[in-house]
Amino acid sequence: MKKRPTILVLGAGYGGLATVVNLQKSLGVDDVEIILINKNDYHYESTWLHEAAAGTLKPEQVRYPISRVIQQDKVKFVKAEVQAIDVKAKMVTSSAGQHTYDYLVIGLGFEGETFGIPGLDKYALSIANVKAARQIREHIEYQFATWSLEEVKADSRLTIIVGGAGFTGIEFLGELGDRIPELCEEFDVPADKVKVLCVEAAPMVLPGFDPELVEYAVRQLKSKGIEFSIGTPVVEATPEGVKLKKGDDEFEFIEAGTVVWAAGVRGNRLIEETGIENMRARVKVEKDLRAPGYDDVFIVGDCALMINEEINRPYPPTAQIAMQQGDMCANNLIALMKGQPTQTFVPDLKGSIASLGSNDAIGVAFGKKMTGKKASFMKKMVDNRALYLIGGAGLTLKKGKFDLL
Amino acid sequence: MKKRPTILVLGAGYGGLATVVNLQKSLGVDDVEIILINKNDYHYESTWLHEAAAGTLKPEQVRYPISRVIQQDKVKFVKAEVQAIDVKAKMVTSSAGQHTYDYLVIGLGFEGETFGIPGLDKYALSIANVKAARQIREHIEYQFATWSLEEVKADSRLTIIVGGAGFTGIEFLGELGDRIPELCEEFDVPADKVKVLCVEAAPMVLPGFDPELVEYAVRQLKSKGIEFSIGTPVVEATPEGVKLKKGDDEFEFIEAGTVVWAAGVRGNRLIEETGIENMRARVKVEKDLRAPGYDDVFIVGDCALMINEEINRPYPPTAQIAMQQGDMCANNLIALMKGQPTQTFVPDLKGSIASLGSNDAIGVAFGKKMTGKKASFMKKMVDNRALYLIGGAGLTLKKGKFDLL
Repeated sequence: MKKRPTILVLGAGYGGLATVVNLQKSLGVDDVEIILINKNDYHYESTWLHEAAAGTLKPEQVRYPISRVIQQDKVKFVKAEVQAIDVKAKMVTSSAGQHTYDYLVIGLGFEGETFGIPGLDKYALSIANVKAARQIREHIEYQFATWSLEEVKADSRLTIIVGGAGFTGIEFLGELGDRIPELCEEFDVPADKVKVLCVEAAPMVLPGFDPELVEYAVRQLKSKGIEFSIGTPVVEATPEGVKLKKGDDEFEFIEAGTVVWAAGVRGNRLIEETGIENMRARVKVEKDLRAPGYDDVFIVGDCALMINEEINRPYPPTAQIAMQQGDMCANNLIALMKGQPTQTFVPDLKGSIASLGSNDAIGVAFGKKMTGKKASFMKKMVDNRALYLIGGAGLTLKKGKFDLL
Repeated sequence: MKKRPTILVLGAGYGGLATVVNLQKSLGVDDVEIILINKNDYHYESTWLHEAAAGTLKPEQVRYPISRVIQQDKVKFVKAEVQAIDVKAKMVTSSAGQHTYDYLVIGLGFEGETFGIPGLDKYALSIANVKAARQIREHIEYQFATWSLEEVKADSRLTIIVGGAGFTGIEFLGELGDRIPELCEEFDVPADKVKVLCVEAAPMVLPGFDPELVEYAVRQLKSKGIEFSIGTPVVEATPEGVKLKKGDDEFEFIEAGTVVWAAGVRGNRLIEETGIENMRARVKVEKDLRAPGYDDVFIVGDCALMINEEINRPYPPTAQIAMQQGDMCANNLIALMKGQPTQTFVPDLKGSIASLGSNDAIGVAFGKKMTGKKASFMKKMVDNRALYLIGGAGLTLKKGKFDLL
């Protein structure tokens, strides 16, 4: 009897989990051994983390147990941290031991990128995962509680600097706009003491979005009291705040009790040690999602880099694309096992919507620009769709967003 | 026309607010000018603060607006901090200005007493008021969130030291016993990493309580994983933890991310500057609650010291006694204004119940010892009664405890 091939999937993010869910749908128990390794025994919605970080959504709401979506007769789940990937020896080392494979799927997600700016690693918080998001929420609440209690009040405790005016930064600011009035009420803080400042090195907000939508987003956030400092790179972070470059020889130091760095992501650092060619730990994958030079290694999600040839720029690292890659990765794995040719992955971009709080958003969906409640509704549909695609109707009902107004 | 006398009431705790509520019931708009000065525009249930500190009750639930219980045509409320009391010049200075009076009622409550132990003022948290309680909750949550996130885990973050095995310390431990499992669940912390240790200088727990009840309380708290170190005074607190004296020349340093000091209270420091004779800012009041030597000054609540002559020890500073003092103070003020003799205050002790979490308690009520759910039920009735006496049925329904099981 021929030994079943082993498919080892690293990471239970959108890409890895979509791969596993699609494999288990199409394959029988005897066809293949599927092993899924993930640091936590839960999947989290990384596109919802800004809500957990602001405190507008409970951390519990943004995650669900992996056991809920895998068929345990078909998939062996290992809760462990991946420590090394040896694509030549076909061996992965994790905190649970060593794992060999016939096919490997790398879906290890993103890490924050601080571009070597001194102090950011140490003094800025990052919306990197559910634990980090939860700590941001607690950090901000602690600052408010402490300000309220202390005799000599350090107003800079109530200053929140958000580094980055990209997708994550703007969505986080939108949630803060909703959350700050609640925090003021809860902790007896006068609203005018709170300062939320978005600092961005680039001269623009939300690059890639339609200018009209960007203008709407900035106007809405400003109406919630959020300030912007655009074209002013952060050059240093300290325990007291950040130093901004305002001109050739002009700098400004802004004291802040909370600094959240939401500018720039990179792939997982383990990629850099594999020998596979990469840029900031992202691999420019072949058309069928395999790593160049390794026919048994697929890369999905934020560690995969694909160029949109229409505009000659990389596709953004989104959940939408990661899940589509998971589908295609599963199909191509099955094709390989059957000795059939693999297929080319082509993203099907349905649009992109950035939320601006619980009832507001901007974006394009099905070719239409939209703002406000309509866009917000659509955003929640998109969020629920991700749940549905991986976990089905039951999970969507349990964890979905139905405050649709 | 004769000028209306001015009654100035300092503090909207149980004693001050009971005085005002009783005065406004008995007096007409033209009889008197009543001015109430309080730091916050809300009253808080200081006997519930341990719940807000542990996080088992929301801070919002332990307070209500003063405007809800005063009649604004009869009582002028001034939100200000009292800064000085000059009983000779009959003048009080607050952050809102100067206030003269014909009669003064001092109900400024307790402060924590650290007995000069080095570092406690700076590094230990105190369940002193609603803001301080709220910060304790946030502090503990922040420690749990940070432990969960950090790569190299400092387990001492999850150690909570409670200084004091008196009423407040024990009640706080009871709430922690309920709260810790929730925190472990919420922040992905294994329960065996958490350590809650009660340290007490005296060789006993809950002095004044029946030994059988004390034994029950300690057993119940231990079953929730709480440890006790009795007869071991804290001799120093540092940012890293506390140093305990374990023998003549024997000391132990215990690292802890959270130190809560719940041992010992004193009266308000302003009392010490009045020239009125006092012990740790508490005044041994006359039988009619007036300050010795000052016929126009009443003292109620925790700043008043009364000796229980049956046992030749002071009555404990409780809400029950403070509210009874408020009643009597109002009666005696009215008597003075009418030129009638004042009456002697005799506490009517209905019992004392210490909670051990949401469903457990020990105590004596109406002469009966009780433990467990029965005592817990009685405790909630006592808590609701305080709301009812000051704020009536509406307030009790809104803020009361009805999880009576």
